[in-house]
Amino acid sequence: MTEKKTTAATRGPSDHTIRDQIVAAAMEYFSHYGFEKTTVSDLARSIGFSKAYIYKFFGSKQEIGEVICANCLTDITERLNAALEKSPSATEKIKQLFQTLAVAGCELFFRERRLYDIAAASSREHWPAAVQYEDSLREIVLAILRAGRTAGEFERKTPLDETAAAVYLVLRPLADPLQLQSSLDTAGEDASQLAALVIRSLAP
Amino acid sequence: MTEKKTTAATRGPSDHTIRDQIVAAAMEYFSHYGFEKTTVSDLARSIGFSKAYIYKFFGSKQEIGEVICANCLTDITERLNAALEKSPSATEKIKQLFQTLAVAGCELFFRERRLYDIAAASSREHWPAAVQYEDSLREIVLAILRAGRTAGEFERKTPLDETAAAVYLVLRPLADPLQLQSSLDTAGEDASQLAALVIRSLAP
Repeated sequence: MTEKKTTAATRGPSDHTIRDQIVAAAMEYFSHYGFEKTTVSDLARSIGFSKAYIYKFFGSKQEIGEVICANCLTDITERLNAALEKSPSATEKIKQLFQTLAVAGCELFFRERRLYDIAAASSREHWPAAVQYEDSLREIVLAILRAGRTAGEFERKTPLDETAAAVYLVLRPLADPLQLQSSLDTAGEDASQLAALVIRSLAP
Repeated sequence: MTEKKTTAATRGPSDHTIRDQIVAAAMEYFSHYGFEKTTVSDLARSIGFSKAYIYKFFGSKQEIGEVICANCLTDITERLNAALEKSPSATEKIKQLFQTLAVAGCELFFRERRLYDIAAASSREHWPAAVQYEDSLREIVLAILRAGRTAGEFERKTPLDETAAAVYLVLRPLADPLQLQSSLDTAGEDASQLAALVIRSLAP
């Protein structure tokens, strides 16, 4: 996203406030009318800017969508880090990892903001923010496993990389907004059951 | 599907051969041209039957799609049962369960027959065949866990229902064609890693 932001910043005035205003208005607009079937013209008309003015700040509709998506994913990551910091043990961190991703993902993409199709596009089209989010989740999984192994909470027979990859696979249906969408009603409970299974798999 | 078949059978001549011919031709047709964006008229024209004649046997395009989907899922279930029968232990059955679903699902819906959007519709719209398939997989998971617990291969502290529900959740991304589609390239390896994690979670 850093690269993306730099590119976009060179396109228009260095007024971040206007960029932020457009993003906030676009988020509101896409929540109501969807992302896939609307155009930059529709958006411009609705927020009272000219299409040309919006194009001074963003190269395409997707670029606006990517910023919105990145903001949502950053929000989820921040909630996750706050929850992990408060967890006293690696076992507790695993529980929080599954629970926070399920709850925050459901809320941010589906209940509060209803950015369904931004979430879907980001995952389906591997937007940079989505790829970066995946990478950061893999890092988080690895860090929790390392801490748990060091503290003697988790087994050490299985190669660390193998365990980390498998735990991430179990987590993915909750972390990927596209997959999360198919289990919104049960995501919270699914998260508890999956975390419990993963914790049993990590027993020394 | 039994109910569905009865309904359809009462609509037209009791000639199952013609039904089967239509299904076979439709499978071929949808593999090439997709399911969502084609009509019964398109299909009729392509196979040289009148639209009215096809409607003697099937109430709607979806009804044809459901039979095709049911056939695919039956095929997967048969492959799965054959693989499970050959597995000497419950642990081996868990491995086969994950592996067979991943491989057979990829082949039947995506590589050999390319019935992507029938698979997607069946899962998204909860077609009877898809629901029945899910139920039968839950039963298979439960049976393997019971056998493994009786044989002393699996732990017995966790309530059986809880373990079964969690194992099914881990299996779901491979069993659900809609979710499988997003990981076709890695499904085989994902299946091994997930099965290994599940087996570790079941250790006594």
